[in-house]
Amino acid sequence: MSDADATIQSMADASPAKWHLAHTTWFFETFLLRDHLAGYTRFDERWPFLFNSYYEAEGARHARAARGLLSRPSLDEVLAWRAHVDAAMAPLLARPDLAPLIELGIQHEQQHQELLLTDIQHALWNNPLGPAYVGFGTATAREETARGWIEHPGGIARIGHEGEGFAFDNEGPSHRALIEPFALADHLVTNRDWDAFIADGGYRTAALWLSDGWSWVQREGVTAPLYWREGESFTLAGWRQRDPEAPVTHISYYEADAFAAWAGMRLPTEFEWEVIGQGHDASAGNQLDQAGAVRPHGSAGLFGDVWQWTRSAYLPYPRFRPAEGAVGEYNGKFMSGQFVLRGASCATPRGHSRASYRNFFYPHQRWQFTGLRLAKDL
Amino acid sequence: MSDADATIQSMADASPAKWHLAHTTWFFETFLLRDHLAGYTRFDERWPFLFNSYYEAEGARHARAARGLLSRPSLDEVLAWRAHVDAAMAPLLARPDLAPLIELGIQHEQQHQELLLTDIQHALWNNPLGPAYVGFGTATAREETARGWIEHPGGIARIGHEGEGFAFDNEGPSHRALIEPFALADHLVTNRDWDAFIADGGYRTAALWLSDGWSWVQREGVTAPLYWREGESFTLAGWRQRDPEAPVTHISYYEADAFAAWAGMRLPTEFEWEVIGQGHDASAGNQLDQAGAVRPHGSAGLFGDVWQWTRSAYLPYPRFRPAEGAVGEYNGKFMSGQFVLRGASCATPRGHSRASYRNFFYPHQRWQFTGLRLAKDL
Amino acid sequence: MSDADATIQSMADASPAKWHLAHTTWFFETFLLRDHLAGYTRFDERWPFLFNSYYEAEGARHARAARGLLSRPSLDEVLAWRAHVDAAMAPLLARPDLAPLIELGIQHEQQHQELLLTDIQHALWNNPLGPAYVGFGTATAREETARGWIEHPGGIARIGHEGEGFAFDNEGPSHRALIEPFALADHLVTNRDWDAFIADGGYRTAALWLSDGWSWVQREGVTAPLYWREGESFTLAGWRQRDPEAPVTHISYYEADAFAAWAGMRLPTEFEWEVIGQGHDASAGNQLDQAGAVRPHGSAGLFGDVWQWTRSAYLPYPRFRPAEGAVGEYNGKFMSGQFVLRGASCATPRGHSRASYRNFFYPHQRWQFTGLRLAKDL
Amino acid sequence: MSDADATIQSMADASPAKWHLAHTTWFFETFLLRDHLAGYTRFDERWPFLFNSYYEAEGARHARAARGLLSRPSLDEVLAWRAHVDAAMAPLLARPDLAPLIELGIQHEQQHQELLLTDIQHALWNNPLGPAYVGFGTATAREETARGWIEHPGGIARIGHEGEGFAFDNEGPSHRALIEPFALADHLVTNRDWDAFIADGGYRTAALWLSDGWSWVQREGVTAPLYWREGESFTLAGWRQRDPEAPVTHISYYEADAFAAWAGMRLPTEFEWEVIGQGHDASAGNQLDQAGAVRPHGSAGLFGDVWQWTRSAYLPYPRFRPAEGAVGEYNGKFMSGQFVLRGASCATPRGHSRASYRNFFYPHQRWQFTGLRLAKDL
Repeated sequence: MSDADATIQSMADASPAKWHLAHTTWFFETFLLRDHLAGYTRFDERWPFLFNSYYEAEGARHARAARGLLSRPSLDEVLAWRAHVDAAMAPLLARPDLAPLIELGIQHEQQHQELLLTDIQHALWNNPLGPAYVGFGTATAREETARGWIEHPGGIARIGHEGEGFAFDNEGPSHRALIEPFALADHLVTNRDWDAFIADGGYRTAALWLSDGWSWVQREGVTAPLYWREGESFTLAGWRQRDPEAPVTHISYYEADAFAAWAGMRLPTEFEWEVIGQGHDASAGNQLDQAGAVRPHGSAGLFGDVWQWTRSAYLPYPRFRPAEGAVGEYNGKFMSGQFVLRGASCATPRGHSRASYRNFFYPHQRWQFTGLRLAKDL
Repeated sequence: MSDADATIQSMADASPAKWHLAHTTWFFETFLLRDHLAGYTRFDERWPFLFNSYYEAEGARHARAARGLLSRPSLDEVLAWRAHVDAAMAPLLARPDLAPLIELGIQHEQQHQELLLTDIQHALWNNPLGPAYVGFGTATAREETARGWIEHPGGIARIGHEGEGFAFDNEGPSHRALIEPFALADHLVTNRDWDAFIADGGYRTAALWLSDGWSWVQREGVTAPLYWREGESFTLAGWRQRDPEAPVTHISYYEADAFAAWAGMRLPTEFEWEVIGQGHDASAGNQLDQAGAVRPHGSAGLFGDVWQWTRSAYLPYPRFRPAEGAVGEYNGKFMSGQFVLRGASCATPRGHSRASYRNFFYPHQRWQFTGLRLAKDL
Repeated sequence: MSDADATIQSMADASPAKWHLAHTTWFFETFLLRDHLAGYTRFDERWPFLFNSYYEAEGARHARAARGLLSRPSLDEVLAWRAHVDAAMAPLLARPDLAPLIELGIQHEQQHQELLLTDIQHALWNNPLGPAYVGFGTATAREETARGWIEHPGGIARIGHEGEGFAFDNEGPSHRALIEPFALADHLVTNRDWDAFIADGGYRTAALWLSDGWSWVQREGVTAPLYWREGESFTLAGWRQRDPEAPVTHISYYEADAFAAWAGMRLPTEFEWEVIGQGHDASAGNQLDQAGAVRPHGSAGLFGDVWQWTRSAYLPYPRFRPAEGAVGEYNGKFMSGQFVLRGASCATPRGHSRASYRNFFYPHQRWQFTGLRLAKDL
Repeated sequence: MSDADATIQSMADASPAKWHLAHTTWFFETFLLRDHLAGYTRFDERWPFLFNSYYEAEGARHARAARGLLSRPSLDEVLAWRAHVDAAMAPLLARPDLAPLIELGIQHEQQHQELLLTDIQHALWNNPLGPAYVGFGTATAREETARGWIEHPGGIARIGHEGEGFAFDNEGPSHRALIEPFALADHLVTNRDWDAFIADGGYRTAALWLSDGWSWVQREGVTAPLYWREGESFTLAGWRQRDPEAPVTHISYYEADAFAAWAGMRLPTEFEWEVIGQGHDASAGNQLDQAGAVRPHGSAGLFGDVWQWTRSAYLPYPRFRPAEGAVGEYNGKFMSGQFVLRGASCATPRGHSRASYRNFFYPHQRWQFTGLRLAKDL
């Protein structure tokens, strides 16, 4: 990736690759070095203004939509900053009181690793030359597999993170939820399924769509998932033939919901997903470290390949309270207007996956590796 | 109200008064007379295009934002249409098979009665002359009343409409919900409370706000509820001195949520509100037929004065299915991006109120009589 | 025209009929009664804010795009204001010192008479019912007439208003202009001509268009003059069959220029038009007082039917100085970005026509009765 | 300049530096190599789509506003293309029939050299770090010089390019123009003058402004020339102290016109400027090759430092006809809505300057080195 590749920004939702690198560095420099390392001075006093994302408590910041104009600092300068911060962090790594904050910094960086990939994919897609970010081989042709349902009898379930490992604040507090009998598909919806939806007029049938979704389809002229053209999709390896058996991806909540309506099913709630997910191996499936990853190819289990839209709005759990201070802005303030996705995608760092993890996006957004898994009432 | 008053439209969210009258007439003419009265011919074949609101199954329709350009048909012509439809309905009123549809038509019309009032208020507010729609006397000065909490021990509650009376499809199916111990305020937040929030810098303190809310405040330059200027508010009777003891109204979800955060409390969920509401008289309180109504003045009980924002996103209840045909578009297709409000307002026809009723608006909208009632965990 | 008809506004460029009436009344009340009639008090102190158009020297004013929300004052109230002002004007009519200002007020009102007609036409066109403002009979079918050119040998011409009669400030000072030999068509371009332009792909041929014009065509999806649909056009009498021999109207400068390019000709300059116009009877032709007027039908002479786009930008004449005070804002401040039109239209009050008259609009505007007359070099 | 610097685009009006390089290369490859070198094959078949600017005859092209997303081809690849094209051009350089087209390619490239500088200045200004593109020393402090007027008695002048040297098509045909007696200032308006305009409330006095200009001032919140902050301006060498004696630059036509009104003068017409310019040395003054250039510093003569707004709209000269084919799109199609500037700026290649040269921009644009020279009637 060149300095120029790392600088461009294709929409306000996405950030330049260089910006992601700088922002995660800023996070460590600010919340650890500045706040906890006596005598530390900023690498460059002017850069926090540029690389604070949305922390109001950290003051004014550069406009999000203008991140793509920052040809300076250069990629090399940002890498030097990162090396400087890495070195400065050494004395703090052994301090037990800082372990939670360091863990947060690492988890934060893992989230940005995924965003970096989806953002650069979007930027390269905007280039008529369709350049590749990585190479990967041809997907192995696979046969359509048997498809079944995972049934659940309902009852009172335990929801949210418990125990020792790391979790974000929005995964708690752990609490009870009442579940009605339901079944969750043991497979993701595939490109082949989606072709059938299109062939049946899915994008032209108002009755299948939420009102906001139908407006979006009309306004944007949507006729297929993002990155589709004829038999191809744009991937991190450039334009590639679409695999009919691979999970469909780059769809909005509106599309997921319309597809479910067309199929006579529905999306699961996030609680339904979680109670099933608790019984699955979160480290299985096609995730970021797998060979040939960063494209979905249809792995078993609930995790990997694509984030799965649920019909649950992203809202606080009972008795949720954000943390004090700037890091309290991490999750809580986004709890309006978005929907929860569960699972993990082909671009998710594996350690980042767990049953209680709550990803969230606006219903029209689809540049992430988003897909769906159907549910039905029993 | 003149023909001109009934014609203007001040924003895409609102409709002209004449349009409301015509649209409710269209509803009866279409779903009852056309579909169920043999030999009925439309009063004017060209008008359905103008007065269909959002029923995709009923075909193309006039653009919502352009409703204010329809100086024709005139108010007199629409009133003649209405008289014609009323007369034509006579033979259908006795048919038991049509009773549910007629009931829906009436309930639909009651909803539009409320919208007509909030929409004309918005239109008149846009006129620098600040004309009045109705007259009402000076509010009686009242003392600040004692304030308490209604406690609930939690448990599994029954939610949604049951029994004989009318309800919209989105109020069902009746189902169980798990409630944690909580308390709901026995009073609405007042103008006096809101003045304190403003005086304490509420609109300038980012930490109190949802991220989307803060963007909205910044973008729109919001510093007070809608219709406020200095010590006055704009009402259906024109500009009036604000009563500090009256419930605050014309606030967005963002404002309600920020106020709750400032007060160290939270908004109730719609289920919490409903379990308390089940024990209250829905026909009590300041509603449309009360003398001096169409402004909140602080009545007892849960119903009346203002619709109360809950922290629940507007989503389908378990096993919800919209009705077949065009009337299935009534509620279900709006289930994304909006929040539920409960109660009833000073502009709500009294028969229209019940504990299971789910009103819903986008979080930035505030031209309805919207307010809030606090909740807290126990 | 009903109160509602007189209240609606279909775009920011246009104003409600009631507003035109009120604004011309405001002009007399402000610049004559307030300034020159001792003891005069405003009919309503709050109305100048509403009905000042663009006179910065007269202070703040209502937003132009919101004029259509003014259901109050009602049409009756504005008519009463007008009667009051007319009566109050009586003692001023005999004062010689005020004659120029009164003349300006009358000429100003005549301009608004024309705008009122073109604005209500636009508003009614926005109504899917296509209501008529006036009735007029079927146009007499006419044969295609012989077409010729009016030649001019070039030289130094006298341009601008001279002599006794009224003229706007922008028509002077009278000055010399150098003209090269040219010819001006003795006829207007007709609907039949325009059909040929369309049939030949005029709207799809980039090479014919100015760059801004081509962007406008692409952005707005323009494929015909405003108000055309199949064989009909929308007129003040509603949708009517188009007469092939009538002058084409409701075209933008961009369209006029593209047509001229397609025809291998060009538009005249305003000076070329004026030197020819000086030899024609300005009171001839199809103008507002003619029976069956307010649609072009192809009269002889240079005046009437349609305003004719020239290729001259609207700029000050040499030594032009705007008048002192608010009325100095009448014309001079609009001298950027617009093009001059000459002649008069079927909606122009006859006394308002003269060879030196400079009408002006932005190159994309076409809701006036705008057309074209070709020119060529000799 | 890094690959990233050369890739970014700060607004649709400006282009990335790399794009300028590629576009001028495309011009030679297309109109010379492709059209006139037998057997030439494109360096890359996909690039013309990216680097055609606005030539409709050359087919579809990349959206102007998306040029900043082209991280590929890289700067190195574009430089390799350029070297390839330079080499391929060798056999064509000796062909007399191609000399006019080669000259056009060179002149075209010189225009883009100037745009490259003004565009990168704009991009770097958008970076809160304010990086420098070049270094230059501190300007020598200078005393306010005597100021006079160049008088002209009026008469019939010869306007437009004549003779042997190169000129763009819009500089002809040579023709006569009638000039009234006038005087042109022998000096440019300076920063000191502009400070006086600001101090006198120039940006707050509606009466000084064209209507469109006043709207622009209000809408954009304009209070000073582009690139000003307190005592500094942003230059190609970063933020620098402003020299009061240097010519003011980065002003719009609206500002130039308002200043002239404030000063009781006016802007010259382009013809007035040209008749005076004919008597001056076009190769004098501060232009691109001068040491310490790319900022205005106040040179003598009419050329150099800043382009000077005239009050002439950019329109065709009498008998003007664009060239056949794609190169005919060079100038003619922009002849609406823009104003002519005369002279040359500190970023203009010296050979590119001549009395007949017509530069043109929209009246709100000011990222070029634009300034003004006053005129008055005699």
